[in-house]
Amino acid sequence: MTSSEHLAQLGREFHRRGWALGTSGNFSAVVSRDPLRIAITASSLDKGQLTAEQILEIDSNGSVMPPTAGKPSAETLLHVAIVRSLGAGAVLHTHSVWSTILSDYHKGQGGFFIEGYEMLKGLSGVATHEHREWIPIVENSQDMNMLSGETTRMLEENPGVHGFLIRRHGMYTWGKDLAEAARHVEILEFLLESVGRRQMMEPQY
Amino acid sequence: MTSSEHLAQLGREFHRRGWALGTSGNFSAVVSRDPLRIAITASSLDKGQLTAEQILEIDSNGSVMPPTAGKPSAETLLHVAIVRSLGAGAVLHTHSVWSTILSDYHKGQGGFFIEGYEMLKGLSGVATHEHREWIPIVENSQDMNMLSGETTRMLEENPGVHGFLIRRHGMYTWGKDLAEAARHVEILEFLLESVGRRQMMEPQY
Amino acid sequence: MTSSEHLAQLGREFHRRGWALGTSGNFSAVVSRDPLRIAITASSLDKGQLTAEQILEIDSNGSVMPPTAGKPSAETLLHVAIVRSLGAGAVLHTHSVWSTILSDYHKGQGGFFIEGYEMLKGLSGVATHEHREWIPIVENSQDMNMLSGETTRMLEENPGVHGFLIRRHGMYTWGKDLAEAARHVEILEFLLESVGRRQMMEPQY
Amino acid sequence: MTSSEHLAQLGREFHRRGWALGTSGNFSAVVSRDPLRIAITASSLDKGQLTAEQILEIDSNGSVMPPTAGKPSAETLLHVAIVRSLGAGAVLHTHSVWSTILSDYHKGQGGFFIEGYEMLKGLSGVATHEHREWIPIVENSQDMNMLSGETTRMLEENPGVHGFLIRRHGMYTWGKDLAEAARHVEILEFLLESVGRRQMMEPQY
Repeated sequence: MTSSEHLAQLGREFHRRGWALGTSGNFSAVVSRDPLRIAITASSLDKGQLTAEQILEIDSNGSVMPPTAGKPSAETLLHVAIVRSLGAGAVLHTHSVWSTILSDYHKGQGGFFIEGYEMLKGLSGVATHEHREWIPIVENSQDMNMLSGETTRMLEENPGVHGFLIRRHGMYTWGKDLAEAARHVEILEFLLESVGRRQMMEPQY
Repeated sequence: MTSSEHLAQLGREFHRRGWALGTSGNFSAVVSRDPLRIAITASSLDKGQLTAEQILEIDSNGSVMPPTAGKPSAETLLHVAIVRSLGAGAVLHTHSVWSTILSDYHKGQGGFFIEGYEMLKGLSGVATHEHREWIPIVENSQDMNMLSGETTRMLEENPGVHGFLIRRHGMYTWGKDLAEAARHVEILEFLLESVGRRQMMEPQY
Repeated sequence: MTSSEHLAQLGREFHRRGWALGTSGNFSAVVSRDPLRIAITASSLDKGQLTAEQILEIDSNGSVMPPTAGKPSAETLLHVAIVRSLGAGAVLHTHSVWSTILSDYHKGQGGFFIEGYEMLKGLSGVATHEHREWIPIVENSQDMNMLSGETTRMLEENPGVHGFLIRRHGMYTWGKDLAEAARHVEILEFLLESVGRRQMMEPQY
Repeated sequence: MTSSEHLAQLGREFHRRGWALGTSGNFSAVVSRDPLRIAITASSLDKGQLTAEQILEIDSNGSVMPPTAGKPSAETLLHVAIVRSLGAGAVLHTHSVWSTILSDYHKGQGGFFIEGYEMLKGLSGVATHEHREWIPIVENSQDMNMLSGETTRMLEENPGVHGFLIRRHGMYTWGKDLAEAARHVEILEFLLESVGRRQMMEPQY
């Protein structure tokens, strides 16, 4: 399976699971490091119908590389920033209900901790549930230069994180490859739903 | 794919997703403008089994045009009112749990705002999350002349809206064509679930 | 499609939708009136794997009629009671999360009203949302003679109802045939989830 | 169907239903009693793609028996402890949202009762809803010798239980064979969701 086929398959699956509705969500995988080439979803697509032909190849400036042609995702620069800051091999941006509302609920603290859950062990490098995972929240913006700069700074200040939320705008996570990044999506979506429902069961929690 | 096939496919999909259970939901697409001809679901059908043969063609009075025959949806006049008021190319009425309960919860205010969510950009013409979308709520009625008149007035008073709720009766949205209207359904259902759950997490929200 | 095939198909579908998990749920359809013969699910089956061969035929005493053989559902007498009291052509007992918790939440009042919802029009004979549907709650019992007697009395006292709950034990509904009864399941499950979530949004509701 | 094929099928199904996301969940079935041989899922697998080839065979010390080879689930010793303590023929560990949050909510009491629900009759040996099922909660640990010892002690002190939770780590249940254990998963997950939502509807409940 090529990166483009894998990205298309993940897009259709995430749509089915409610994590990439409308035209939301964008997904990328590093194709080569030197020079940097990234396969990424084109802009404004219905992810439920995503095909490998709708995946573009971009360079480190976000410019589309022939023979692929089209408009890459509006958030291409965030993908590049994450690949460069962390050496990630794949970056996945999903947009679930739980990530959306928790990114709003905890905005005043700039993030929140998820701690003590066995499921945390599904995150790369985490070997015990006695782990304290900080989920940073970045303020949303339509200025992608500002948002990617803000993301780069946040990643420098929070070197160990496995994902972050943009306020009222869903989640970014990544991995060494698409399989690991996709596992991180599942793990983090599970944890967000769990802490969200836990909170609703006991508001003072 | 013909309009009838597309309408039938959407009906089956919306049923599967819980947005058109029982015999609820009705769906239409403009076939021609002059004279106005609209393809619309027949009345009282199980949308989970909807076929293209169950789509009727009507004129601007809601009369069924041969060779199609049958009883069009009870809410045909609302579809006509929306097509005429807004020039919409397709109108979709869904009936989810979240649209039903929010249409009741906010009835005293005649509607509510959805504001600051990235997902709003999936609505036609919205370019930023810094958008304030008013979701009007119309009181329910079995008098379709009254309800379509009320809808026409409401649309005149709220020219920018992308959808509205009927109290305890679900949602109407539309688009230039069926693909855009279907995207609006996904976007608005996501936003309604998000603001509904957000509210439950923090009642004073 | 025979009644047995239709019952098996509904069983598998209700299992998939979470309304007949474990070995819960039982389903019947009248095969003949004089003498009374009812096709009904055998006892203790996984409804996710239900086949037409697992449907038995019983008479008005609940005795199994050859050539079918086996142990009919423990709740056979309730099905017979509903068929006799109401002349129903099909009886469906589902066991969803929402019916279970609402049957407990409202136990003190012996039932609750669902009122003002458009979806009520999906119930046989209801022509307007301005309808007030009483959902009776019967106390649970393992004594099937007592429970079917109690059900018969309750149906006499509440002639217009379309379904009822057994406390912490799910829902019974029925119809003139299996298609109508299955529609009633969808309608009532939708309404129970809606009023349940509405309640959670505003506890004083 | 071999035990390995059945285990793989259950793994894929539980993943689809959200009960074994990421690499969570592990599943076993006794192949022989004397000497004890258990088929069990290998460690760290995506259960959504589980195949029969990924099932290992172990002995009573958790050592992998040729010709199977690989690293068995980290929680192998818990499976062995449950098989030995209870004579179970199959052990299933799932990791749903509801089991996770209830294992945390009730941690102070060391467990909680589920009582009066008809669905309890789906548990082996339970003949009436008038049953009081204690759901023990064990504190989580990465020390598998300690955790399996703790589990053995807990099972001795609570001889009648059908399952237990590990804090913030999901559920264990079992049965005489895989079919019974799988039914117990469905039953207990239904009951956990029901009591969880019931609690949210009425916090003082």
